[in-house]
Amino acid sequence: MSRWEPNTVERLQDAAMTLFHERGYSDVTVADIAGRAGLTKRTFFNHFADKREVLFAGSNALEEQVERYILESEAELPAIDIAISALTSAGQTLSNYSEVARLRQDVIASSPELHERSLIKMASLSQVIAAALVARDRHSTEATLVADSAVTVFGTAYAEWVDSPASAFPDLMNKVLTDLKTAIGAASPAARLQQRE
Amino acid sequence: MSRWEPNTVERLQDAAMTLFHERGYSDVTVADIAGRAGLTKRTFFNHFADKREVLFAGSNALEEQVERYILESEAELPAIDIAISALTSAGQTLSNYSEVARLRQDVIASSPELHERSLIKMASLSQVIAAALVARDRHSTEATLVADSAVTVFGTAYAEWVDSPASAFPDLMNKVLTDLKTAIGAASPAARLQQRE
Repeated sequence: MSRWEPNTVERLQDAAMTLFHERGYSDVTVADIAGRAGLTKRTFFNHFADKREVLFAGSNALEEQVERYILESEAELPAIDIAISALTSAGQTLSNYSEVARLRQDVIASSPELHERSLIKMASLSQVIAAALVARDRHSTEATLVADSAVTVFGTAYAEWVDSPASAFPDLMNKVLTDLKTAIGAASPAARLQQRE
Repeated sequence: MSRWEPNTVERLQDAAMTLFHERGYSDVTVADIAGRAGLTKRTFFNHFADKREVLFAGSNALEEQVERYILESEAELPAIDIAISALTSAGQTLSNYSEVARLRQDVIASSPELHERSLIKMASLSQVIAAALVARDRHSTEATLVADSAVTVFGTAYAEWVDSPASAFPDLMNKVLTDLKTAIGAASPAARLQQRE
């Protein structure tokens, strides 16, 4: 293929983030990003399908890591524990990127099309988790419900970590999982009885 | 505005569904849909922003109904009960559309861009629920977790209802909520013990 270019992906990401921050996401072109990184548009498109993808470069690696973790996990653990551990483990590499994380979240929040792409990435992550749990002999309904819940916990914990990057990500995951259990399971006996009638 | 055209939205939806089923989603144009319904492209665009939206015509009404239900609900009920009741109530009108529902699900499953639009609609529904719960004095983290969980339950129950439309939608919602509580460990110890056997 093309000649060797060290850290191409990282250079493109850095250039994109700087430009998005300077000019706003919608006013930056792929040519601008490539130019700032000292690379060509062709090189950009060797690595990313479009301008949006440069903000989601890590998502495939994250999915692969989570999938591998689940496929190698202890089969007899509850599915929710497996899924949360997998996302916690994958998420711990985030701590290397705390400075970029807030900038990235700000850019995503500034653009409906980036917000949509972010939703799609999370849904894709959930599907990967559900499929891996099914491969570990979980029923598909349980796998789907666990996967969606684990991704909800991950998204909430990630947002909290971006706000306070000094917090340990595993602690945030545990806290949000407990919050979730409380939120959907802590109905008073009277209210639950009433609901069943 | 334009002259009165009875059931315009329904005619466009019926025409779209028939054509998508006959030719496949990607081979049908807005002009085809309008033509089949005996209407103009301009009329189509008076009602829908693009070809995808014709499949999601009810989503704004659903959001409004769910929002109103939550804002008018008894303040002291647990948030999860309020959210599930709101979606159950709104979802009950679905039973009038069981024939269309399967066709629609098949069309959505056939196209990545429709699948993405569907995800975005569900995320939007979750945001509406979370905002309405915050307006009812719930903390934003609880509101987000409850909203995401309730929409997960709704999506799963809806898929089960499409597969077996003879089932009562409220029963499916209750069943899936119980499944979710069991799956993430918010159910009673007895239920979890049973699940492991």
